[in-house]
Amino acid sequence: MTDKKLSGAGLRGQSAGETKLCTVGKSGSGLTYCGYDIADLAENSTFEEVAYLLFNGELPTLDQLETYKAELHTLRDLPQSLKEVLQHIPADTHPMDVMRTGCSFLGNIEPETDFSAQNKAANRLLAAFPAIMCYWYRYAHDGVEIDCTTDEASLAGHFLKLLRGQTPSKQHRRVMDVSLILYSEHEFNASTFTARVCASTLSDMFSCVTAAIGTLRGPLHGGANEAAMDMILTFTSPADAKTQMAGMLERKEKIMGFGHAIYRTSDPRNVIIKKWSEKLAHEHGDTALYDISVACEEFMWDSKKLFCNADFFHASAYHFMGIPTKLFTPIFVCSRLTGWAAHVMEQRSNNRIIRPSADYIGAEPRVVTPISER
Amino acid sequence: MTDKKLSGAGLRGQSAGETKLCTVGKSGSGLTYCGYDIADLAENSTFEEVAYLLFNGELPTLDQLETYKAELHTLRDLPQSLKEVLQHIPADTHPMDVMRTGCSFLGNIEPETDFSAQNKAANRLLAAFPAIMCYWYRYAHDGVEIDCTTDEASLAGHFLKLLRGQTPSKQHRRVMDVSLILYSEHEFNASTFTARVCASTLSDMFSCVTAAIGTLRGPLHGGANEAAMDMILTFTSPADAKTQMAGMLERKEKIMGFGHAIYRTSDPRNVIIKKWSEKLAHEHGDTALYDISVACEEFMWDSKKLFCNADFFHASAYHFMGIPTKLFTPIFVCSRLTGWAAHVMEQRSNNRIIRPSADYIGAEPRVVTPISER
Repeated sequence: MTDKKLSGAGLRGQSAGETKLCTVGKSGSGLTYCGYDIADLAENSTFEEVAYLLFNGELPTLDQLETYKAELHTLRDLPQSLKEVLQHIPADTHPMDVMRTGCSFLGNIEPETDFSAQNKAANRLLAAFPAIMCYWYRYAHDGVEIDCTTDEASLAGHFLKLLRGQTPSKQHRRVMDVSLILYSEHEFNASTFTARVCASTLSDMFSCVTAAIGTLRGPLHGGANEAAMDMILTFTSPADAKTQMAGMLERKEKIMGFGHAIYRTSDPRNVIIKKWSEKLAHEHGDTALYDISVACEEFMWDSKKLFCNADFFHASAYHFMGIPTKLFTPIFVCSRLTGWAAHVMEQRSNNRIIRPSADYIGAEPRVVTPISER
Repeated sequence: MTDKKLSGAGLRGQSAGETKLCTVGKSGSGLTYCGYDIADLAENSTFEEVAYLLFNGELPTLDQLETYKAELHTLRDLPQSLKEVLQHIPADTHPMDVMRTGCSFLGNIEPETDFSAQNKAANRLLAAFPAIMCYWYRYAHDGVEIDCTTDEASLAGHFLKLLRGQTPSKQHRRVMDVSLILYSEHEFNASTFTARVCASTLSDMFSCVTAAIGTLRGPLHGGANEAAMDMILTFTSPADAKTQMAGMLERKEKIMGFGHAIYRTSDPRNVIIKKWSEKLAHEHGDTALYDISVACEEFMWDSKKLFCNADFFHASAYHFMGIPTKLFTPIFVCSRLTGWAAHVMEQRSNNRIIRPSADYIGAEPRVVTPISER
């Protein structure tokens, strides 16, 4: 039956389908959503505009955006039964596992009844994810049952207010908004590809997103910003960072937040989030963390020609905004949901079930020996 | 960067990796697990032996099997918090969504802490899935909080007893056992491939299985036996079946339970489950359902040269055993979990993250227009 052997494992460099949503490493600064360069979007749009773009193919007019934001606003609160399920999840659970269960359970009580409801399902998840994350986090860690609604106009501000219980600064809102834009979409990365394989059986939106969350959870995919944060916090100064990183390289330890499967010389998202991290450092009165991060960047480039990817300066930026490290990857979920859902919609629009073959390398044909004779 | 274009959508006929677990359409009757023909396994082994085979590469000795079954026996009951979560899921929820949430939540409270615990996690799911399904079903539909333990020696008997509350017959136990063997494993089908993509980020076992459940949920993958059952029940006689199916073909309606993505002339699982369905029909005193099913088979072969796949005679077999149609696909989960988990273990043993590329067919590079001018 089979089969052309694909060059290299992991389907690397192999096309597994078509998309209108994204290019990676092809034009402009290297990352485009629906034709728009990521730098342009990060400078001149908001996360809600990007979500609208990914779901509809075009940026919204002012009227369309206001309508869309008003709709999202109505979808932010959590049903009581979901809150009760989240209360059952212990504080030491991996926060990505909380997002996975929260998404799956929301699909139990508010199912996508048919594909005509796909935008509604995607918007519901988009609006509800900040509350799923923060309700569980505050309940499990602080024993507080937070109100899951806020008067914040944007999802970025809404998340920050839910998490911290106080109105965020304008700058924090904007940095979070940019961060959500930067993580929104990235072509056929592993979690998005999972969402498409799931969608290709014509499964529902909640199943596809739940599957994608489980995939993003893996340390080879999401979680690099958390690992970068943990590392940076062990360094006491820029000089110490360089010394310690040299030791890590010598011991062949994995250093997270550098290099990329597709980008070869830089990650276009890094320059953007790095700039915002620097601004936050000034606002925060930081005298160490940002400079240490820059030292790490310099060291990795000088010694290994490895560049910071999107994750590295996200670590310090999130830290300056008071976000607990364990919530870094769940924020990625809140953002990438837009790309996942858009890919699910795209897969459905021209579907064939994704069912590859395998090269068999196992035992030759054999006969079952009766168990008494084994 | 990219990319060799794969011939045909859906990666059909393309190798996406290597496996020792299974061949489909290659040798013997067409389906082998670890070198053993499916007909041989269905005749001369039990589901627990097949699970052991898939997880360990070899069939167990009698001692190994007894130890394994004793271990599984201790893992059957559900934690109280999982029961409470299942109580929150309404009766009209898609049962596959219940399995998805149950699996995800079990991963919240009993996480796979590291890969050395992968067999434990797989066995826990294997032993607990019947209770997850039946506890929810009986609570949501009958208002009964069942005891999730039984004295049944096999998982097949355990499931039947949990569902019906009475000791199953020897023949019912054996048919369910064979059914679980037949559905255990099928190479890189969509749900298994999802599990492998998820595993390739080094995510945990519960995430991989949750993702696979969501994928199996789609009507192009699981659910064909349910659809076949619904159809068969509308036919009043063999002659009526042929007349009505002719009408369905004329109206180009999809008829489930026939044909296969890989098998070309027959599905090796059909002859096995068909034989058992016939035996159950005799035991049951059936005078219609089995004969109608045979008429469907004859009609589809005579008119379209389409053969019954594994799902078609599963419908009547399950029906004769008193299993509600909506639980057919969750039983598939209880069985295929073995294949999914074995593939996760295999992916981990020689991993590279699965990250294909895409052909871009979207908008040309463009510039963000200020929203006031859109």
